[in-house]
Amino acid sequence: MRYFIDIAYNGKNYHGWQIQPDAISVQEELEAAMSTIFQEKMKVVGAGRTDTGVHARQLYAHFDSDEILDVKERMFRINALLPKDISVKKLIQVPEDAHARFDAVAREYEYLITTVKDPFQLDFMHLIYRPLDVDLMNEAAKVLFEYNDFQCFSKNKTGVKTYHCVIKKAEWTQVGSQLVFTIVADRFLRNMVRAIVGTLLEIGLGKINLEDFHRIIQSKDRGEAKTSAPAHGLYLTKVSYPAHIKL
Amino acid sequence: MRYFIDIAYNGKNYHGWQIQPDAISVQEELEAAMSTIFQEKMKVVGAGRTDTGVHARQLYAHFDSDEILDVKERMFRINALLPKDISVKKLIQVPEDAHARFDAVAREYEYLITTVKDPFQLDFMHLIYRPLDVDLMNEAAKVLFEYNDFQCFSKNKTGVKTYHCVIKKAEWTQVGSQLVFTIVADRFLRNMVRAIVGTLLEIGLGKINLEDFHRIIQSKDRGEAKTSAPAHGLYLTKVSYPAHIKL
Repeated sequence: MRYFIDIAYNGKNYHGWQIQPDAISVQEELEAAMSTIFQEKMKVVGAGRTDTGVHARQLYAHFDSDEILDVKERMFRINALLPKDISVKKLIQVPEDAHARFDAVAREYEYLITTVKDPFQLDFMHLIYRPLDVDLMNEAAKVLFEYNDFQCFSKNKTGVKTYHCVIKKAEWTQVGSQLVFTIVADRFLRNMVRAIVGTLLEIGLGKINLEDFHRIIQSKDRGEAKTSAPAHGLYLTKVSYPAHIKL
Repeated sequence: MRYFIDIAYNGKNYHGWQIQPDAISVQEELEAAMSTIFQEKMKVVGAGRTDTGVHARQLYAHFDSDEILDVKERMFRINALLPKDISVKKLIQVPEDAHARFDAVAREYEYLITTVKDPFQLDFMHLIYRPLDVDLMNEAAKVLFEYNDFQCFSKNKTGVKTYHCVIKKAEWTQVGSQLVFTIVADRFLRNMVRAIVGTLLEIGLGKINLEDFHRIIQSKDRGEAKTSAPAHGLYLTKVSYPAHIKL
């Protein structure tokens, strides 16, 4: 039997989702808790990875088990064993061939900015005092739809075959003193959202203009794009699958 | 000129509001930042103190200055210098004899509980998986109105003259998976709210009943009341003053 698990985590204490040597990851914590509960070595395959310090409100991963699970009971036990900053939100049986990574058709990220100091959001939003031109940042966000190659926003040497992504949504919205950037694409390159946000913020601060933004993207050079926005403002918020994988 | 300052803070990294030797406090951070900005040694008098790890969404303090302040500019500069987990929300000139502590007529606290694991609230709400009888907890909260002496919920040896408090509100409300206890009184004893919440939770879990609760209060003995609820769920939310102090 194959199952999808929907998890959320506070990325502050983790070197991202993916297991790696000598650094603590969300995947490692999840597999450790599940292995204890299932009493066998468990492996999960995530929809994608998140960078160090980045949060997730929804990340699907799949795993296989011979058992027919009482999903509520199993979820409860995994949650009780996991650290407080990782939470299992759903556990669902899916078709045998459903794949959390390869079947995902879109990912959504949100980047949260606050323009007012909030002692309770310091780990969860990027604080910017200086006034931002949100209209101009939205104009620049629309520019992203004109391109397919986003190498300029990708970390170097990540071993991907192409830098091709289809942007489906890219938009800033303002609610009171909060500013949210929502971006949806079929796939994302490593560090891509934070590099885009960091570059859009330079536009919002009047340091570069729309022409510069076009030139940066056309350069395909990470050195041209601006400093990445800090990790603690970024959330993976949604992973979408075709209808036959009912979630 | 006398001024009131309204501050909020995330209590996680502080040994409470009040200055003390060998431990970092919110008051110390505030006085240090203000002394730098005002270029003289500044002292503030707070409306009350909060325990280690307890948060505040509103705490008024007063201070004196010979200057007529541009309050917006001054607030901005103090905020920029303060750590990210302390925020100045207001700065207001008040009558010369207004006193942040002695003139306060009521304080409001909130205690936040979540019944669902939330990775983004782990420093801000107390997580309780076991089902709570909220109706019974509200019945018990009403019992508080029948008493004036709350020595049973006070830390010992605090040097207060009386354990007399007038409870003006004490109520649990449930919003989705969150549970909020709101309590208003003219004054609070040290550790009082957390001791009350801890004892009410034992009622909600069915470990003690309303009769026990009466007996605990009548005992005037902290040893009879139950373990204090953890500090990270508690917020000082409001300090009220008479109308002639316009805030």
